[in-house]
Formats: sequence, C-alpha cells, structure tokens
Amino acid sequence: MSFRTTLDLLLYDWLLVQRLNSRERFSEHSRETFDAVLDTCERIAADKFAPFNRLIDTQEPRTETDSAGNLRVLLPQATANAFQAYVNSGMLSAAQNFDIGGMQLPYVVETAANAFFAKASVSIGFGMLSVGNANLLMAHGTTLQKKVFAQNQFSGRWTGTMCLSEPQAGSSLGDITTRATADGIDSADDPLGPRYRLSGNKMWISAGEHELTENIIHLVLAKIPDSQGQLPAGVKGISLFIVPKRLLHLNFSGNPAEPQVSLGEHNDVALAGLNHKLGWRGTSNTLLNFGEGRHPVQGHSGALAYRVGLPGKGLQYMFHMMNEARIGVGMAATMLGYAGYEAALSYAKTRVQGRLLSDKNPSTKPVRIIEHTDVKRMLLAQKAFCEGALALELYCASLVDEQHTAAAESADEARLLLEVLTPIAKSWPSEWCLEANSLAIQVHGGYGYTRDFPVEQYWRDNRLNMIHEGSHGIQAIDLLGRKVLMEQGRGLTLLSNRMNASATQAQHLPGLAADAQALRVAVQQIINATESAWASENPAHALANAVPYLQAFGHTVLAWIWLDIALTVTQHDASFSIAVHAGCISAKDYFYHYELPKINAWLQVVASRDMTCANMAEDSF
Amino acid sequence: MSFRTTLDLLLYDWLLVQRLNSRERFSEHSRETFDAVLDTCERIAADKFAPFNRLIDTQEPRTETDSAGNLRVLLPQATANAFQAYVNSGMLSAAQNFDIGGMQLPYVVETAANAFFAKASVSIGFGMLSVGNANLLMAHGTTLQKKVFAQNQFSGRWTGTMCLSEPQAGSSLGDITTRATADGIDSADDPLGPRYRLSGNKMWISAGEHELTENIIHLVLAKIPDSQGQLPAGVKGISLFIVPKRLLHLNFSGNPAEPQVSLGEHNDVALAGLNHKLGWRGTSNTLLNFGEGRHPVQGHSGALAYRVGLPGKGLQYMFHMMNEARIGVGMAATMLGYAGYEAALSYAKTRVQGRLLSDKNPSTKPVRIIEHTDVKRMLLAQKAFCEGALALELYCASLVDEQHTAAAESADEARLLLEVLTPIAKSWPSEWCLEANSLAIQVHGGYGYTRDFPVEQYWRDNRLNMIHEGSHGIQAIDLLGRKVLMEQGRGLTLLSNRMNASATQAQHLPGLAADAQALRVAVQQIINATESAWASENPAHALANAVPYLQAFGHTVLAWIWLDIALTVTQHDASFSIAVHAGCISAKDYFYHYELPKINAWLQVVASRDMTCANMAEDSF
Repeated sequence: MSFRTTLDLLLYDWLLVQRLNSRERFSEHSRETFDAVLDTCERIAADKFAPFNRLIDTQEPRTETDSAGNLRVLLPQATANAFQAYVNSGMLSAAQNFDIGGMQLPYVVETAANAFFAKASVSIGFGMLSVGNANLLMAHGTTLQKKVFAQNQFSGRWTGTMCLSEPQAGSSLGDITTRATADGIDSADDPLGPRYRLSGNKMWISAGEHELTENIIHLVLAKIPDSQGQLPAGVKGISLFIVPKRLLHLNFSGNPAEPQVSLGEHNDVALAGLNHKLGWRGTSNTLLNFGEGRHPVQGHSGALAYRVGLPGKGLQYMFHMMNEARIGVGMAATMLGYAGYEAALSYAKTRVQGRLLSDKNPSTKPVRIIEHTDVKRMLLAQKAFCEGALALELYCASLVDEQHTAAAESADEARLLLEVLTPIAKSWPSEWCLEANSLAIQVHGGYGYTRDFPVEQYWRDNRLNMIHEGSHGIQAIDLLGRKVLMEQGRGLTLLSNRMNASATQAQHLPGLAADAQALRVAVQQIINATESAWASENPAHALANAVPYLQAFGHTVLAWIWLDIALTVTQHDASFSIAVHAGCISAKDYFYHYELPKINAWLQVVASRDMTCANMAEDSF
Repeated sequence: MSFRTTLDLLLYDWLLVQRLNSRERFSEHSRETFDAVLDTCERIAADKFAPFNRLIDTQEPRTETDSAGNLRVLLPQATANAFQAYVNSGMLSAAQNFDIGGMQLPYVVETAANAFFAKASVSIGFGMLSVGNANLLMAHGTTLQKKVFAQNQFSGRWTGTMCLSEPQAGSSLGDITTRATADGIDSADDPLGPRYRLSGNKMWISAGEHELTENIIHLVLAKIPDSQGQLPAGVKGISLFIVPKRLLHLNFSGNPAEPQVSLGEHNDVALAGLNHKLGWRGTSNTLLNFGEGRHPVQGHSGALAYRVGLPGKGLQYMFHMMNEARIGVGMAATMLGYAGYEAALSYAKTRVQGRLLSDKNPSTKPVRIIEHTDVKRMLLAQKAFCEGALALELYCASLVDEQHTAAAESADEARLLLEVLTPIAKSWPSEWCLEANSLAIQVHGGYGYTRDFPVEQYWRDNRLNMIHEGSHGIQAIDLLGRKVLMEQGRGLTLLSNRMNASATQAQHLPGLAADAQALRVAVQQIINATESAWASENPAHALANAVPYLQAFGHTVLAWIWLDIALTVTQHDASFSIAVHAGCISAKDYFYHYELPKINAWLQVVASRDMTCANMAEDSF
C-alpha cells in the first residue's frame, strides 16, 4: 500500500485522530482539514524536497572566507527553495495558537505531515530545529522573548539552533564549560531579559551558520560562575541563554506591546568550522565559538546573551521538549527506512533476474526479483520495521496530544506512557529502520552499492540517528535506570496493562490467538527481567545490559503495535481492501515469527545480570 | 592484544601451522620463514597502504577522455606506489612453485600475510584479482597460456580481471549474453589457444581499466552460439576466454619454450564507464564493452579472445577457485571489522567523558570512556566478531592446504569441510564484521559520524561484502540447498563431529563445561532444523528461510571456533599472558552468553518451514 494509504490507516482507522475535534483546542478541525494539510505537505515534499535529495548530498555545505575574514557557509539554491516552500506551508507554526498565526493542529497530525518531508529529504530542511527552539521559548520565555525570538522563528523570518554539546563534553552535559557572566546591567535595563556575556565552544550545532535568513537565534546552555569565578558542578549548574547571531534594536515608540525589531551589529559568535559527515549533508553542522572576541560587542569580547527563566534550570527547560525532540529523531529514522523500502520495492518489481527455485529449466524467462522468496523476506522485514515504527511514532505523538488536551487522569497516563515509550520511540527506529536501509541496499544487489540509486544515501543518513539526541546507550540507561522505575514502576505497569489489553482483545480472534499469547509471555518476560536486573539493587549490575534490555523492550512494544494494527484491520475488515488487510496481517506475522523470538537472547543476559562485559579488563582487549 | 599477537596465537598455538613443514611442499619453511613474510607484509602495509586509505577514498578513480577519444582511468599516485610495493614483496606469487619464482608458502600463511594489507587499506590494492586470475590459468590453461598470461601476472608485469556479471545478469550467470564466435583460425594456427571474437557488456569489473601496468588480462565468461546462431541456455553453455587489453606478439626465434612477448595493438575492449560506489573506492569498478568496434582488430570489430579449456566448462573452471575467492571476501570483511575495532579501542582509551554509574558526584573527574560498561560491551562484541572471524578464515585457509597437501583421507575431509564452511566464511564476517564497524562508529559518538575519523569509511567499505562474490541469499541457498545435502550429508556430519569433538574436550575443563553443553545443543538444533527444512522434500519450503538458517549455522560455527580457541589457551595456559588468556575467555563468554542464544529465533522459522515471506502477495507490500 502507498505511504499515504498507510498514513491514513494509522491516523484515521487505528488512532482515530479525527475524534480529536471533540476537544476544544481542535474543535475547528476535522478529517478534511487534516487531509488538506497532508495533501499540501505531500505536494511540497514531492516538488521541492525529493528531487534535490541527492544534490544536497553531493553539494554538501562548504565555507568561504569573506572580505572581512569571516567564514561564510555556502548552501545550494535548492536548500533555500525548500526552506521557503516549508515556510510558505505554514508548518513552522502548525501547532501554535490561531492568535499568533498558527493552525492549532494536533501534534500527531503535525508529525504525520512532517513525515513527507523526512521521507523526501531528511536533511535539506531545518525547520524542526527552529520549531523546537521556539517552542521552548513559548514554554519558558518572557512575553517579549516569545514575541521577539519565538514568533520570528514561527514565521520563518529567522531560524534557531540548540547549543548543548561541547567538544570535550558530548553526552555529559554536566561537564560543559561555557561561561556566562553578568553583563553588569540588570534585567530592568534590557527588556529582552537579564544580560550576560558568554564564552565557550559549542560542538555539533546543526544549522549554526547560514545565510538563508537574516538572523539565527542560538539557545545556549552555559554556567554562571560563583563569586570565586568557579563554575558550578554538574547539570544543576546549567542555565539557558538566548544568543542572537545579530543583535537587535527594539523600537517601542509605536505600540509598546509590539516593538519594531531591527537588526544591529554582529554578536560575538563565530563559526569555527563545519563537521564533514558520513551523511545528513543537507544540514550544516558546525563548531561555534562564543565570546572569543572575533566580533566585539560594545568594545569588548563576550557574546551578548539573555537568560531564559531561572539560573540553574537550563537543562530542565531544555529537556522539557525532549520527548518531542526524540519522537522527531524516531520519525526521521522511520522515514529514511521507509524511503529505502519504497525504493527497494520499486526496484524489485521491475528488475528481472534469475528463476524460481522450483524452475530448473534455464530456457524459461527470468522472473522479476520480487518473485524470489528471499527478496520478499527482505521487503517484508522492511515493511514490518518501517510501518511498525511509523505507527509507534504516531502513537507517541498522539500521547503528546493526550497529555496536553485530554481530561486530567488520561492526560497523566499519557504523560507517564510517554516517559516510558520515548526511549523506544527514539532508539528502535534508529536501529531497525537502519537495518531496513541495509536490506534495501541488499535488494538492489551491486546497484544498491552505487550512488546511481538512492538507497546507499538513506543508509548513510540513517546512521546518525543512533548517535544524536541521546545515544543508544543513553536511551537504554534512561529506560532501565529511570523510566521503568519512576513512580514505583507505574509507567511500566500502565504500559503492560495496555499491551495485555490488546492481547485480551485478540485472543479470541481467528489468526491472532497465538500472537496474543506470545505477546503476554513477552510482556511478562520484560517485567521479570526488569525485576531480576534490579534484584541486587546495584545500578552497576542492573544497567550492565541496559542496551539488550532496550532492544528486547523495543521489540515487545513493536509486537504490541503490530497486534493492535492487526486487530484494527480484522475488526473493521470491510473498510480495507484484501491487499491492505493481508499486508498488515503478513507484517504482523513476520514480526511475531521472525522478530519477537529474538527477545529471549537479549533478556537472558539482563535477567542473569551477566557481568562479562562489565568485568572485562582493559588490557585484555 | 595486538593484531600480530592474535595472528601468532591463531597460527602457531591454535592451528599449529609450523607443523606444515613436515609436508614435502613446505619442507623448506619454518616458523622463522613464515614470520619473515608476516614481518615484511606488516611493514609494507604500514608504510605504503595505511597512510593512504583516506586519500584513495576521497580521490576516487575518475575518467578522462584522451586525444583519441578513449576513456582513461586516473588513479592517485599512492595507488601506483602501493601496487609496486606489493609486487616487490613477492606476495603475488607467494603460493607458487619455487621454479617459477614463487615462495611455496602455505595458503594459510599467504592469507595471514595479506591480512595486513586488507586491514591497512582494503581497496587500494588489487593484487588479489590478478592472483585469482593467474591461479585459474595455472589450473586450466595450456603451458603457453600459463607462461604468457599467468606468469606475467605473478611477476606484477600485468594485472588481471574476472569478467562474469553483465548489466542484465548479476548473480544469474546462466543468462549472460556475451557471445564468442570462432575467429576462423583453428587452434593450431595460434599458439595461445583457439581464437574467438567476443562481443558483449560486462558489469562490476574491478580494475577493468587503469594504466598501472602496460597490459590487463581479462578472463571472460561468454557463450559460443550454435550453428543457428542461438546461445546455449543456462550455465552449461558458458565457456571461458582470455582477452588481453593489448594484443601480443610472440617471438619464438630464441628458446621456443620461452617466447619473447611484446605488445601489439589495442584489443576491441573499451571502458564504458566507472561505477561510483558507496565505498571500496580505491579500486576502480568498471563497465566494459567487448567487441563494439571501438578498437577494430585486423579491420573488424570483436575482441580477440583465446578459449581456456573446453567449451561449456567455463563456469566450472571459474568456480574451481571459488572457495579461495570467498575466503578472500571473508578476510576483507574481517579485516575491515578489525581495523574499526582497533580504531574504537584506541579512541575509547583516550576519550574522556562521563562518570561511572556508581559515581553520583558531579565534581569528580570524568573517566575515559573505556571504563563505561556499555562501551566495553561494544568493544568486546567487536573483539568476539573480528577475532572469531579471523580464526574462521584462517581455519578455512588451513583446510585449503590440507586439501592440497595432506594424505588422501584427510585431504578429502578437508575438501568436504571446506564445501560446507565456505558459505559461512564468506557470509558471516560480511554481516557481523559490518556490525562491528557500526559499533566502532557508535563508540566514537558524533566524531564517528565525521570523516575526521576512519570508522565511517570502514563501515562503507564493508557494506560491499554481503553483495559481491555471491550475495548473502546465494550463500544461504548454497549452504542449505546444496552443501549440507551433498554426499548424503557427509559434510554436515563431518563438521558436526568436529564441533562435538571440541565439546568433548571442553566438557571437563573448569569454565568450559557449560559452553561445551551449549555447543552440543546448538549443533543438534542445526541438524534437526536441516532435517525439518527438508522434511517435505520441497525446495520452496526448505529454502524459504535459507538466510536465517545461514545466520544460525554461522553463529554455531563461530561458537565452536571460540570454544576451540578457549581450549587452546586453557590447555596451554603457561604460554599466554594473563591478559591474553582472559581476553580469549571473555570473548568466548561474550559469544556464548550474548550471541549463540540468537540461533533459536533464526532456527524456529527454518524448522517450522515458515511460509510468511514466501506467501506474501505482491500487492500487499
């Protein structure tokens, strides 16, 4: 079935998102308005994104030194066109209130609509970063910070970045050393917020420098030194700052609530260089130097910065949006996998080679390779991985909507389920849709290894997703070390109950009973392994095999998702074509027969608290 | 332990290759002569290969049109230097007889010595292709074909190619359409062999065009039409031909057994273009047009070709060397994995980030990442995969020596074991050492995703190995459809007996008893799954899950290899340092605890003859 058919099935038949219009926030929406957004995004992605996905890979961002000695970043024209088309679509403010020009779309529909862009060219756009930046300011900024910094991103006038990592501190944010010292002017004197000067280096900053827009709004984590000049230790010492690339002049002479904003001098932020990556080359990835004096402000070095919220709360603010950011990574991984699946399916339907195993006559005509069982196996695996991952991401996105708009008890359950599922939503597609991309190459044979076909790029692009926004190992520790324990394990219980509820629904249906039982067993294995891992109450024992736990947990969740989709197509049989119904059932069968049994091997080391790896001596490697 | 320590342990302590000097062919050799070869190769690889591995990736082969309108291939100078150093090492004729300038090295030592080059830069050299080409001629060519075409490759004067695939027929060689028609001169008239004119297109030809040597010897599969001009169907209609890029003039006026060879006109072979690949960019990969009239020979089109052996035996001759070719691919995959492991280990020992799980004090100093359990897990997996794969390849290489030099019964057993193990030797490292490369990226975090570190290139390079020289799917069908059945299953019985013999040796040793039992169970599961797969005697049922079978079989073989290595270090405890002993035992433990249990999931679908994939309807994808 086409991607759009899949999306419609998941949104309207499985998640029933059309029912969201009973909520006040979404009351002006309907399936028709959702479809209109999907149609628009599908069209723009096809016109302005997909045709340029190879171009942005071969013409990766490069730098040029301008006459003033500053590094400029050069991007292809296609990137500017794609960005402008995305701005024009209104998607930057899709989720915002009507009163600031938004569409008040449910997050799940926004996520579905953005899927078209991710599938067409995952790295050409960087709207997502601006939206994340602006959302954070909407949650924690002052009224003026929202108006000036967030709304100019929602409109596409400016773009934004998230500056967390430093060269010496990637995942370990407690060790950042970017320093923020008060600028000697108290907050009353600058309407944009308490003023600081920042100095430090930030690494892995996507879209950290470009000329697509006249300004870039950096959100930067930094530490405020104590009176002895010492930086506070750990994550509790981190504060959050707004650092515009170019400083602003505000003119309040008209309506004081609506100041006119014009651009002033260059702030003390300089591009130190670009990272040259394996993939994801449509987006520039930068090393930024803050406050090194390349662009002194008012005569001295230090990047002018406005604090957001309270000192010491920076990481908390940044992580407020973490669930959505991680769903975003999961969606990117999913859509890369899906793009590869589409390419492999199309190739397999046309490429002629070999004969069926039953045909020993070399004079018969060769068949299309989709007729070979092993090619079918590779395609069905891709379908099960990518459609399953898409369903998971949309489910998680729908939980975000529940959290924000459902009645109190449901909202709280949605929040807790999201806490538990987010590590899976981020990690599972990044591992298994990458595997899907590898299978897409394999279906193409030697051609898949050439740059004449798109699948090798998808595979390269997708390799990023297990690394950024919290690596696989970090997701695993988050899941087993925090999420399944929090609130006395209530999140795990809640999720288990939901999974078992699907099993109960399925157990009397023809063709689903065995899977229902297999899911129940898997859920119990997860619960048992969780308990066994923590039986000695020692994190070093419990977390020694956190990644195999994450893998088993993810496969169990996906098995649940597939059973639940199978329930939908079985119970509403008449609404689906025979082909769609059979496709869902086959993908579910594939997952239960080929994938779910893998959890035994993963959970065995978790349950036994296997210390083979933990005890490995360095000199024995 | 260092790579050389590993190699020494496997060669001299585990395989006891020094004992080969009791065989007449190797009687002039000893550990000292083997070590001298290893030393030389290690040094040349470090000097002439490793430093240029990134360069040959960024400066991939490109073409230029010369004044005559012909496409030339341009390669970096480093490639020429590496090739010349390899020629000077004598490795091209390492296995050849002393009387033609060879070293009469055992194949296992040749394989070990070549490992240094594969680890340093897998694609810069293309000596292996020439050796394969020349070996084939030594087995099936005439005396003069050997002297002219093979020996000039062993000396490095010329290089060779293998031209099998065609654009419309990759793996399906029975469908090739390259046509060979008699040149009207019978064999008596041309001392180089029966003369034909070839026309057709050959795809994926490595080193098909370059200017490093003055001539290139193509070995080409083609079909001889019948009297109606029809090509014979299937693989039985394939013949083998020698097509030199430049034609030869032989002068027999001196010693008629040693004709002087000089180069004549360009043969009718033309470069149609280069394939631009994901990796493996040190080697040009070409599309060649034979006989299209670009370089008419004696006034008319058709590439002048000399038949090798009998008509219709081409594929049989080509596959004569297939076991070695597939061991070569397995070694390439293994050494790419190993190179990544070395890089990741080195990075993990120096990169400082984060704190131990037990340390909640953010003021303590961060640790080197090798101290984190999950990093240890990723390194230990790489060690278990890559050292295990290396052991497997060397074991298979030693079987080649057994096959050629042992007493009759042992030689026959070695032949049969090789038949069964070759699909594993080719497929297992191509899958799991690729996974090792992915783990090496993961250990590096974001840095691993940049081209500033070597690991992303290893991962790209390694993705080829599941595709070429018989894809994963083809290896799987070869194993389950042919190798485990041949000679009434005697090969599988022989291998099972060897695996169980190791288990018997291990079962009373402390620390190995449980693994011995696990291996026995796994071996029996393989035997049972093989029988269940074929229980309906229907290839479509049996082979529907040939790839999962291949995966399970491979993991079982590797478990055996690791138990056998553990036996060696346990029984000869005193000879190894504590670190080496512990490293082998930990890798074995890792394999038995984390990897071997995976076979259950794979074998389940094999044993149940699961038809989920086979029955998938095309319109349900």
